[in-house]
Order: sequence, then structure tokens, then C-alpha cells
Amino acid sequence: MPIADPGPAPPAVTAPDASLRMVTAAVEAFSTQGFHATTTRDIAARAGLSPAALYVHFPSKAALLGEISLQGHRAALDLVSAAATGPGPVTERLRRLVSAFASWHAEHHRVARVVHNEYDALPDAARGEIATIRRRIEQVVEDLITAGIAEGALQADQPRRVARALLSLCVDVARWFDPAGRDSPRELGALYADLAVRMVSPQRAGDAVR
Amino acid sequence: MPIADPGPAPPAVTAPDASLRMVTAAVEAFSTQGFHATTTRDIAARAGLSPAALYVHFPSKAALLGEISLQGHRAALDLVSAAATGPGPVTERLRRLVSAFASWHAEHHRVARVVHNEYDALPDAARGEIATIRRRIEQVVEDLITAGIAEGALQADQPRRVARALLSLCVDVARWFDPAGRDSPRELGALYADLAVRMVSPQRAGDAVR
Repeated sequence: MPIADPGPAPPAVTAPDASLRMVTAAVEAFSTQGFHATTTRDIAARAGLSPAALYVHFPSKAALLGEISLQGHRAALDLVSAAATGPGPVTERLRRLVSAFASWHAEHHRVARVVHNEYDALPDAARGEIATIRRRIEQVVEDLITAGIAEGALQADQPRRVARALLSLCVDVARWFDPAGRDSPRELGALYADLAVRMVSPQRAGDAVR
Repeated sequence: MPIADPGPAPPAVTAPDASLRMVTAAVEAFSTQGFHATTTRDIAARAGLSPAALYVHFPSKAALLGEISLQGHRAALDLVSAAATGPGPVTERLRRLVSAFASWHAEHHRVARVVHNEYDALPDAARGEIATIRRRIEQVVEDLITAGIAEGALQADQPRRVARALLSLCVDVARWFDPAGRDSPRELGALYADLAVRMVSPQRAGDAVR
């Protein structure tokens, strides 16, 4: 591991100041009122800006939704890539990857819900870029599983579908996660990492799995 | 298994005729236009009925959403309960349960997406009943896992959280399932049943999972 390695990217969504305030205000508005019931005026008011100032950065609320979704997907890709290319045996890297991805969806459940629930409202350009990022995320996980199979550390008959299932398990955390509930993002991450490793661990002859 | 056992409930959503047409029309409208952009007039037109006829059955589009969601949740509970109480060893019952639940979410991905994306728009009464059904579904799975642990067939440190994870894995199928894609609901069910059994199979000393 190079000394300068920054480690996993911070899971926070980052952007320049005014733009960040708009994105944060839009996430709040979309997640409480719903995308369709939110006006650009609502978002500007929440951000403490004039509607004109908002239009300088984003021509429409769909453009804001696209920015929210792109930032979220890029952060998720960074997280997953950092874990997959980090130090340690493949099983440890898979464990860190799933732990980080599940925790991220708990921490950022509001952003993730907006992104998933309003997927159809995305501008076409953003949707294309997001589809590309999603494929890259799946590819990172598939490649890690395939590498683990090659060295005998992991076992899966359908690495691509299993990669998708692992990610899907983590993504759905955002749907049901309750920040007032008993689970912390960190604990969920640890449990899901265990479940993921079980899903791809080599089975021995005579084991229950057939 | 009693001779009269009807086996797993059919996964289809059932209702009397006119009501069924309205529910089907509403699912189509909500899943293509979105709940908020759909009017009761749109739904009546799709069902080939007058708006007045629709109001006889459902006082609002939120009431229709509630009925769609209740029917979907009841069908899912029937499916899960039938598998859990069916014949065979606990591992086989878990396998059938997960296979049926995952396949159901692929087959009925449009209904499931409407139900999840528009959860906040549900009438309060429907939301209460749906929350109860969800807890019952989770309880069925937790009880099955706990029974499996007691007889040494399964292993899980946190049966309640693992039950929730197993169900969550299947529910998220509805989000990404593409009927024009390469996966059939049946194949997905089989893969997910395997993954689920792996997640709760006893680990031996020295196995990779820690």
C-alpha cells in the first residue's frame, strides 16, 4: 500500500458551496415532499437563495435530481473501487467493500431513496452516465469475486449475478433503514459483510448447500 | 402433508372483476406515469369505466394505491407462510420460501415498484395494516431460521436481522428486474435460494468466515 494512499473515499457528497447548499436543500425537499410535489422555488427557499440564483446552477429540478444522483453514484463507485483495490486477501477486500457499501446506504438513505424512487424523472444525459457508473460498480465486484475464485478463496457459479445480488442486498438497506431504529450503519455493514462472505465461501462436499 | 393442502398460494393478485380491472389499470398508470401524475380519470379510462363507476369502489387514487399494496403484501405473506409450513427439512423450506419470494418480486416487479416508491402516499389505515403484514412476513422467516438453529441445521447469530436481510435481498429484485433481460424469475429464485441457504449454513472451524 503506497504511503500516499488516501484510503477509501469519504462517503460524503461534496460540491462547491452554493451548489452544495442547493443539492442538500433539494435532497431534503424531494425526500420529504416527493420530487413531483417540490417546486424549484421550494428548493431555493430551503437553500436561502433566490430562484434566479438556483437557475444559474441548475436549469430545472430534474437537473438537480441528476446532480444528486450522479454525486451519489460517483461516491459509491469510489467507495467500492477503493475497497476492491485496497490491501489484504480477497476475502478481506470483499468484506470491506460490502461493509462500506451497506453502511453508505444506511448513512445516505435519504439520498438513495430519492435517487431510486425518482429514477424515471432523471434527465436522459444523467441517466446514461448513471447507468455507466452502475455497470462499473457491478464490474468491480464481479472482478473481485472472479479473482477470488481463481485463487481458490471464493466460490460462485455465476459471479456476475452474485455480484449484482451482493450490491442489491446493500442498496435495499436505504429503503427500510430507520435512523431512529436499533441498527447503526456500522453494525449493519459488519453483518452484511459476514453474509456476503458466506454467500461466496467455498462449500465442502457434504455441506448442506446443494 | 394433508391431502387437501393447496400448496403455495398462487402469486397472482386476485379480486372481483370490476375492482380487478381498476386495480390492474391503476398499476399500469402508476408504474408508467407515476402516482402523482396519474388522475382517477386516467385510471377509469384505462379500465374502460366511467370515473363515477371507479368512485363506487375507491374514493380516491390513494385508496386504490392502498388496495394494490394490501393485495401485494397479502399475496407475499401467503407465499412465505405456505413455504415455511410446508413439508420437508427446514433447509428445504427456507429454499422454497426464498425462491418463491424472489420470483414473486421479479414477476410482479411493476406492482412492487409502485408499492415501494409510493409508500408515503398510502392512506394511514392501509399503511398500518401493511406494516403489520410486513412484521408477520419477517416473523415467519425469523421463526424458520430459529427452528433451523435449534435443530442444528442452520446457523445465525442474529436471526431477526438475517431474516430481514434475506427478505430485503428478494424485495430489491423488483427495483432492477428487467423482463426483457436474461434472467427468468424462476432462475433468479433458484440462485437466491442458494445464496440464502449459504447465508445461514453452519460454518466449520477454520472456514473463511470469521
